[in-house]
Amino acid sequence: MKPVKVGICGLGTVGSGTFNVLQRNAGEISRRAGRGIKVAQIATRTSKPQFQTTGIVMTNDVFALAANDEIDIVIELVGGYTVARDLVLLAIENGKHVVTANKALIAVHGNEIFAKACEHGVIVAFEAAVAGGIPVIQAIREGLSANRINWVAGIINGTGNFILTEMREKGRTFEDVLAEAQTLGYAEADPTFDVEGIDAAHKLTILASIAFGIPLQFDKVYTEGITKLTTADVSYAEALGYRIKHLGVARSTASGIELRVHPTLIPADRLIANVNGVMNAVMVNGDAAGSTLFYGAGAGMEPTASSVIADLVDVVRAMTSDPENRVPHLAFQPDSLSAHPILPIEACESAYYLRIQAKDHPGVLAQVARILSERGINIESIMQKEVEAQDGLVPMILLTHRVLEQHINNAITALEALHGVVGSVVRIRVEYLN
Amino acid sequence: MKPVKVGICGLGTVGSGTFNVLQRNAGEISRRAGRGIKVAQIATRTSKPQFQTTGIVMTNDVFALAANDEIDIVIELVGGYTVARDLVLLAIENGKHVVTANKALIAVHGNEIFAKACEHGVIVAFEAAVAGGIPVIQAIREGLSANRINWVAGIINGTGNFILTEMREKGRTFEDVLAEAQTLGYAEADPTFDVEGIDAAHKLTILASIAFGIPLQFDKVYTEGITKLTTADVSYAEALGYRIKHLGVARSTASGIELRVHPTLIPADRLIANVNGVMNAVMVNGDAAGSTLFYGAGAGMEPTASSVIADLVDVVRAMTSDPENRVPHLAFQPDSLSAHPILPIEACESAYYLRIQAKDHPGVLAQVARILSERGINIESIMQKEVEAQDGLVPMILLTHRVLEQHINNAITALEALHGVVGSVVRIRVEYLN
Repeated sequence: MKPVKVGICGLGTVGSGTFNVLQRNAGEISRRAGRGIKVAQIATRTSKPQFQTTGIVMTNDVFALAANDEIDIVIELVGGYTVARDLVLLAIENGKHVVTANKALIAVHGNEIFAKACEHGVIVAFEAAVAGGIPVIQAIREGLSANRINWVAGIINGTGNFILTEMREKGRTFEDVLAEAQTLGYAEADPTFDVEGIDAAHKLTILASIAFGIPLQFDKVYTEGITKLTTADVSYAEALGYRIKHLGVARSTASGIELRVHPTLIPADRLIANVNGVMNAVMVNGDAAGSTLFYGAGAGMEPTASSVIADLVDVVRAMTSDPENRVPHLAFQPDSLSAHPILPIEACESAYYLRIQAKDHPGVLAQVARILSERGINIESIMQKEVEAQDGLVPMILLTHRVLEQHINNAITALEALHGVVGSVVRIRVEYLN
Repeated sequence: MKPVKVGICGLGTVGSGTFNVLQRNAGEISRRAGRGIKVAQIATRTSKPQFQTTGIVMTNDVFALAANDEIDIVIELVGGYTVARDLVLLAIENGKHVVTANKALIAVHGNEIFAKACEHGVIVAFEAAVAGGIPVIQAIREGLSANRINWVAGIINGTGNFILTEMREKGRTFEDVLAEAQTLGYAEADPTFDVEGIDAAHKLTILASIAFGIPLQFDKVYTEGITKLTTADVSYAEALGYRIKHLGVARSTASGIELRVHPTLIPADRLIANVNGVMNAVMVNGDAAGSTLFYGAGAGMEPTASSVIADLVDVVRAMTSDPENRVPHLAFQPDSLSAHPILPIEACESAYYLRIQAKDHPGVLAQVARILSERGINIESIMQKEVEAQDGLVPMILLTHRVLEQHINNAITALEALHGVVGSVVRIRVEYLN
């Protein structure tokens, strides 16, 4: 068979990696795919290719590439929402299949893009958009298709996980590690997307859709970053037998779906609690398979290229098939998506870690216990530290049983009003993931 | 579309689980697959179904089912080599697609079965044959298709892992834990397949084929069980910062492919070293994706059913496609399989843990060091324990750098001939998996 002709839009880290891996492993890839994959055109505005471009049409116009009759598959690696959206829609209108690594694009404009793709009978593949080199989209969408998925929980931002790992292992502060991550190139100059959880929320939006068969609803994800985490809480968590991870959690409940990204205590003996540095992992709990975990590099030039090319091979195989029989973009048939609502964070249920700064006099603990008990909040364990020299306050750390967030919020308001409690109560959610 | 009609051969644990999950999640599955999956016939010789069989043709003749014109897909869950082989070949000859969970069948008769399937344009799917509910076949075959795979290493026998976990955590002996595992139903009355590594070798055979594009070669796997492991070695390994796991390792080298199942020391901080109890995990190292890990339940009624049904959904989708464009059974096109040889164990390379029982007199260590050094074997670390009260011997534990197995074998012969060394030298391979 004749090689498939692909066009690459964007020659940054992932674009270059995709080109390099396609060249280096061309033999291996065509032994699998049954036909070659030829890069026929590259659109780049900024980068000068570091490789021989003989036989490749170079352009600075991504839209010209998306409309080029010679191209079968368009690889969108320009990033962002605007140009990427226009270019993907144009490619689809021109009857081309699309492969993208752009999580923001899929999380925010995916519903529109997939509807257009169905209309034109083409595939939009996005394995590389979540957890880089880990084939977790396929695992949930196909490998676990027998299951009613109960929940998905993932460490899906490498920068955040690197920062938390350094804070725990070396007792460093958030600000200190972030500065280093920026120097190392793990974090952007503007780290907001990573450390405020927006990047993780994009990925969680996608994971939840394919797990539960719901439309993409990025604007409904509750998102809390790691910027306010202190080394004190990291080490208290450790002392209690937990690790703090920045987790994306999507859980299906009878009343709706929880979609939330936040720092989370996880028991230290869980496999996912031991995923360190820039690595990613996604746990999926299904009613038949139980808990599975998928681990690997969540970003980087070649891991992301690995998933882009896996999608290419899948698309090459599916190109000649009947569109009705293909794997649906969001795992479930477009006419079978569920309207199960996304719950506001106050209606989500979790266990909690609370740190209270108490004055060193008797009776405070009894007052704290009464406030919690009156609101139906059971205490799992309690740890009271020595009086701190500098301020004479006693850090009191509590772990609660599972409870609705609105009850914890009420309790915290009452706790902060106590005469014996100083300042704000620190609250971090706890997940057992079993 | 009309529902696809499937026939289930064998109504043991996995057969019942498959039926139950298909019924329970029928809505969820057809929302994904786009059409229903109907169990039209069940063949069982022994079991009485625990469920309502209205509308299902019951038979005790698996061959009648395999030849039934009403059936589109045959699910082979009878196990073993003989009947299973005949039944699968008959189904293929009758133009039916096959789904099987039978690792022994695929490892031993897979080449013949896949050739016949290609001839008849049908699919034989076997996700459930390796690592139960973990979709690792698909991950390697499709999710990592961009990669030149360097190595695969897996904990792929839950019984063995349960035994090793108990030995480490509770200091129990192999025999003691095995007896309990048999009582709990984790281990068969004849545990040979599990504890001697034959079951793991079946699975490794399959993993290696799809990773490297080689024919199935079960008879070339080097297989060593866990029956001779002592609690002493388990705890010495622990003291050195390692865990002992029964690992299947397939590694591609310039001179050939290593295929081996044996107890293995792994650094305790590796994620796979923390996979405990009956759980399974497979690590895959590819040149683009780096190391990925896939974790979950490796056996059991519903986890295995999860993979059987995922295969069913895949087959339903691919049924109407052009056979030329389907995912090849062994990941690589049948005419592109490689003849890269499987290496004999003497030509495999590994680091080693050696335990030597030395008489308590000076000079033994110098002699040991000389024997290793003369054979080009570098010592990574050495640990000498107290003199043991009962026999006055000194356990001397060495970790070597990576070396060809034949050199270690030569060295061990020389060590055992030393006057100061008593009994056999214990040798366990060490893998760093990074």
